[in-house]
Amino acid sequence: MAIDALQEMIRKTKNPSMVGLDPILELIPEEITKKTRAEHGDTLKAAAEAYRIFCCEMLDALHGTVPAAKVQTGCFQALGFEGVAAMEQVLAYAKELGYYVLMDTMRGDVDCTAEALAQAYFGGVTVGEKTWLPYPCDAVMTNGYLGSDGIMPFTRFCKEGKNVFLLAKTSNKSSREVQDILVGGRNIYQIIMDLAMRWSLDMYGQKGYSEIAVAVSGNHPKVLQEMRRQYDRLFFLVPGYGAQGANGRDVQYGFDRYGYGAVVCAGRSILYAFRKTGDTDYKKCALDAAERMRDDICSYVTVL
Amino acid sequence: MAIDALQEMIRKTKNPSMVGLDPILELIPEEITKKTRAEHGDTLKAAAEAYRIFCCEMLDALHGTVPAAKVQTGCFQALGFEGVAAMEQVLAYAKELGYYVLMDTMRGDVDCTAEALAQAYFGGVTVGEKTWLPYPCDAVMTNGYLGSDGIMPFTRFCKEGKNVFLLAKTSNKSSREVQDILVGGRNIYQIIMDLAMRWSLDMYGQKGYSEIAVAVSGNHPKVLQEMRRQYDRLFFLVPGYGAQGANGRDVQYGFDRYGYGAVVCAGRSILYAFRKTGDTDYKKCALDAAERMRDDICSYVTVL
Repeated sequence: MAIDALQEMIRKTKNPSMVGLDPILELIPEEITKKTRAEHGDTLKAAAEAYRIFCCEMLDALHGTVPAAKVQTGCFQALGFEGVAAMEQVLAYAKELGYYVLMDTMRGDVDCTAEALAQAYFGGVTVGEKTWLPYPCDAVMTNGYLGSDGIMPFTRFCKEGKNVFLLAKTSNKSSREVQDILVGGRNIYQIIMDLAMRWSLDMYGQKGYSEIAVAVSGNHPKVLQEMRRQYDRLFFLVPGYGAQGANGRDVQYGFDRYGYGAVVCAGRSILYAFRKTGDTDYKKCALDAAERMRDDICSYVTVL
Repeated sequence: MAIDALQEMIRKTKNPSMVGLDPILELIPEEITKKTRAEHGDTLKAAAEAYRIFCCEMLDALHGTVPAAKVQTGCFQALGFEGVAAMEQVLAYAKELGYYVLMDTMRGDVDCTAEALAQAYFGGVTVGEKTWLPYPCDAVMTNGYLGSDGIMPFTRFCKEGKNVFLLAKTSNKSSREVQDILVGGRNIYQIIMDLAMRWSLDMYGQKGYSEIAVAVSGNHPKVLQEMRRQYDRLFFLVPGYGAQGANGRDVQYGFDRYGYGAVVCAGRSILYAFRKTGDTDYKKCALDAAERMRDDICSYVTVL
């Protein structure tokens, strides 16, 4: 799916948001971990199985309401190969349900590694006479610190309907340490956005937005507003909603006046909503939180 | 093992180098892939098993000659969970043989993800009453674009003998696009090195070098020389030797006059040396290449 397909799905669901699947063992419901530990003992397999069950249940609960999912690869990789096996199943299930799926890898690689990973995510890994796609997805989030060498192996798949997201201005507190450094009146994150523009070349969707997108945090609304103005053709992923402090009023600035050009991501505030309410029906809590988020954003943004 | 332990191993082997384990399916010996494909079919399992066998054979061949190994996580992850399972076995084997092991993850994460990964690499992942260490290693290479939030979960293990390497000036062609940008007379890579200095606080080994290290490419020797002068307490990983163009003359500038302060990394020029010579004994070719590299570096650098 290309960036227009994501924007179309946002229209269909009237929801310009994305759920971040960031499973954390201490936060997922005890009834799940209790069950998997009973079956597999206190092993990484038990943890991985709990991640798989929880994420698939979240995808079920939010299906039809939330159009896109971001899978945080690091959370799964932290459990070793069992975690990665669980992630593969979560990715496949998300694709099966029709979600737009972004792999949040946070990596920046060069040449042969970037090439190998681009094949694993987008092209397929050929072994002898067969080709395998271990990580089915629509897009990958990468780090541009190494420059175009590490990005091009991914961006050439934009012609085949895949998207690449570059970290520009992130939502964490210390993002300013490197990203906000001023160079002749421009911040480093703008320099990354300039590169995203340059690398986008002629790759724009029908609605005018780039197939190479950038992450621009929602918890710096003035930055978001200014960046939307300056980069009116770059598609934005807006993290920072919910647990990290941004609300609908803040993230509205990522969108153009027709509600195009951005998708807002929230993870913990949806997944772990039951921790705040104390409710045992964690699926309903997640859906309620996702609907509240949608309504909050849509009270500022008109998705036409 | 801390940075002093690595420097001690360099002294013991009289070899200030590190082998980069970057398995690539098309380049590893056909006799290995033929065997694993016969056993497992044209599957990712067959590819992963070939990676495991090849990397363990390389570790055997270089044992006692090369003191350290860098494991490129992306190459293994590109094969899905089977690749990650193979990587876990390679890591365990490298540790068993006594190598100093650096996980080259190239990631830059924040808060909960960085925390989860730091546990997976250094601290151990706790499930119920048991703790597991899926990726046994001594150090991790990370990307500092997100600032200190993403680094601190790792650096706090420096007090327990682990090291963190930050990408500063990388060896790829397009590294200049972001890293070389000048800000008030300083390049972006220097700003990363400034942060590495600041984050190092009081974490220095007996030889005066930081437990938080940086990667500074060997194929920009003038940069390397100038950085060694300016950052005389930062330990350097020097990539770019061999396939990427740097030689002993270039990389010498990473070291101080006693041969401390750096380790040089080469991957493809060692692993795939047999592809150049046409020799079928790929293990001997790798050892020869590693010895030539050692002798080349040591003709410029005195390891006292």
